[in-house]
Amino acid sequence: MKKHNFSAGPSILPDSVIKQAAAAVLNFDNMDLSLVEVSHRSPQFDAVIKKAQKLTLELADLEGKGYEVLFLGGGASLQFLMLAFNLLPENGKAGYLDTGVWSKKAIKEADIMGESVVLASSKDKGYNYIPKGYNIPEGLAYVHITSNNTIFGTQIKDFPNVDVPLVVDMSSDIFSKKLDFSKFDLIYAGAQKNIGASGTTLVIVKKDILDKTKRTIPTMMNYQTHISKDSLFHTPAVFSIYVSMLYLQWVKDLGGVVEMEKINDKKAALLYDEIDNNPNFIGFAAKEDRSPMNVTFNLTDASKAERFNKLALEAGIHAIKGHRSVGGYRASIYNAMPIESVQVLVDVMKAL
Amino acid sequence: MKKHNFSAGPSILPDSVIKQAAAAVLNFDNMDLSLVEVSHRSPQFDAVIKKAQKLTLELADLEGKGYEVLFLGGGASLQFLMLAFNLLPENGKAGYLDTGVWSKKAIKEADIMGESVVLASSKDKGYNYIPKGYNIPEGLAYVHITSNNTIFGTQIKDFPNVDVPLVVDMSSDIFSKKLDFSKFDLIYAGAQKNIGASGTTLVIVKKDILDKTKRTIPTMMNYQTHISKDSLFHTPAVFSIYVSMLYLQWVKDLGGVVEMEKINDKKAALLYDEIDNNPNFIGFAAKEDRSPMNVTFNLTDASKAERFNKLALEAGIHAIKGHRSVGGYRASIYNAMPIESVQVLVDVMKAL
Repeated sequence: MKKHNFSAGPSILPDSVIKQAAAAVLNFDNMDLSLVEVSHRSPQFDAVIKKAQKLTLELADLEGKGYEVLFLGGGASLQFLMLAFNLLPENGKAGYLDTGVWSKKAIKEADIMGESVVLASSKDKGYNYIPKGYNIPEGLAYVHITSNNTIFGTQIKDFPNVDVPLVVDMSSDIFSKKLDFSKFDLIYAGAQKNIGASGTTLVIVKKDILDKTKRTIPTMMNYQTHISKDSLFHTPAVFSIYVSMLYLQWVKDLGGVVEMEKINDKKAALLYDEIDNNPNFIGFAAKEDRSPMNVTFNLTDASKAERFNKLALEAGIHAIKGHRSVGGYRASIYNAMPIESVQVLVDVMKAL
Repeated sequence: MKKHNFSAGPSILPDSVIKQAAAAVLNFDNMDLSLVEVSHRSPQFDAVIKKAQKLTLELADLEGKGYEVLFLGGGASLQFLMLAFNLLPENGKAGYLDTGVWSKKAIKEADIMGESVVLASSKDKGYNYIPKGYNIPEGLAYVHITSNNTIFGTQIKDFPNVDVPLVVDMSSDIFSKKLDFSKFDLIYAGAQKNIGASGTTLVIVKKDILDKTKRTIPTMMNYQTHISKDSLFHTPAVFSIYVSMLYLQWVKDLGGVVEMEKINDKKAALLYDEIDNNPNFIGFAAKEDRSPMNVTFNLTDASKAERFNKLALEAGIHAIKGHRSVGGYRASIYNAMPIESVQVLVDVMKAL
């Protein structure tokens, strides 16, 4: 029996995606070759990456709006650096909203490439909320935000209005709900949470924000390098991109981000209701900032941990241990998580 | 029937590796979860990456000699930049041997980060040979060479003796033969030719060459970042690393690089003998510099191309078209290529 997989990332994938990916590893597109044995420049793989790009623009409703879609290596961690190379002039300043560990890592690279201005921080309360009502000073090259904080279980509900490029790390909630994606100028997301397997990072960039910094950008750090070659400047992570294509198609097939949001909202409500109504549990994140993707909670009585862990294990629940910086539990219920698995977790919580 | 796959990269994998990889995508290590659904920090995946690192040191006979093994994203193309970040001081100079397209790309990044000194070049004859007898000036931060030139089908047989760190791009011939790997201080290789699937790059670095440049190195560009976290600083390409682990185990199981070399030499001799003895064909690379990995050749009479291509297609031969900069044909016969497939190609050449 398959486990109920609450892993924070790499994380659950739709069953149909896993089966199609495994089949393609054996024989891709009736080529009598494995997916991972054929050239990334073959017509068959070219069709895969083009389809993944088209599906991305469709799901984001960004077709014909001047955006390019890339699938790059190095994870979101490399994007922290790459976005600064492309958007931050030497001696320039960029605004960062500090909502946790991942924001901090992005800020670190900005400070190597120029200067970060921390617009606001929720560090004072252990990152359990999203700062609001902060001022955005003049003269910033861009503003950077993390839309969902995997570790702390918080999510930005209202994005700031800015008159400079708005950059968002959407690694842990991309395509989990309907958004006006045209508010953003650069969106990036490691694939391994909501749209695929590790090894590739989705980058959606509005082309007209590029080429403004006069900086000499190393070849692989330059978005234009990858745009000019349609993400095939070098050999990309073929398997990972294939899995993302399948995953994006799966989201489209079930009705796109509008239907995805309804499903995700039901899952989140089921679990948060149990946390709020079961005296054995307490939520970590401020209610108005709760993430529908990463649900962080703890026991009200630590002595019940052994029994809860045992019940969860017996029910086939995988990976609900919280991040070491928060403790307690974290249930990651990304796009691919079926509500039936959330119900199993809720049943275990009720049985405690 | 499976094709005879002469693709230059991504390229052929051992059948057993493909089958094990596909099975792990369905159920990894009896976890009742897919390989690509579990945390890169799970004990099960930790065992995979540790095994891949150990196998690398074993095959290279570098255990206990001060080397670290990393599996990084971004391909060899990112290494062109990353090695310069780590080894080239600002305003420093590094020596590069120019043996073709990939050397040129490495040189380009060195010139962004400092200054390249081209030690010698075979550009004068379309890169069909390896320069020899060149001088290496004093004062270089390192010397960089490309051990095998995929596009032109040349291979370095004797590596230069230098008293500065020797850096080698071994993407297209790593672990294809026995070498004194301790001659090198930094070895890197995109996995998708001789040791796996695309999405990960093997880096073997002698630790004592690092931290000499006084340069501020962005986090993801710094080898020390990845060394300190055993290649798990960020979520790596889990599937690609797993495939490399399987592939390295396959090389070890058949007897390591010594046996691998015997097999590769037999395959290369079979194909080069046909090129030399069949009046319909002519080799591209200088005989003494021929690569046993990428065999480049052409028809002596271009009018026979249509018939040759038809015969090859009918025999199930895949991807022998030469690179556009060389023309003609290229048969890539990497580690995983069985001699039976080379025989099929030779039979087609005989039948022309």
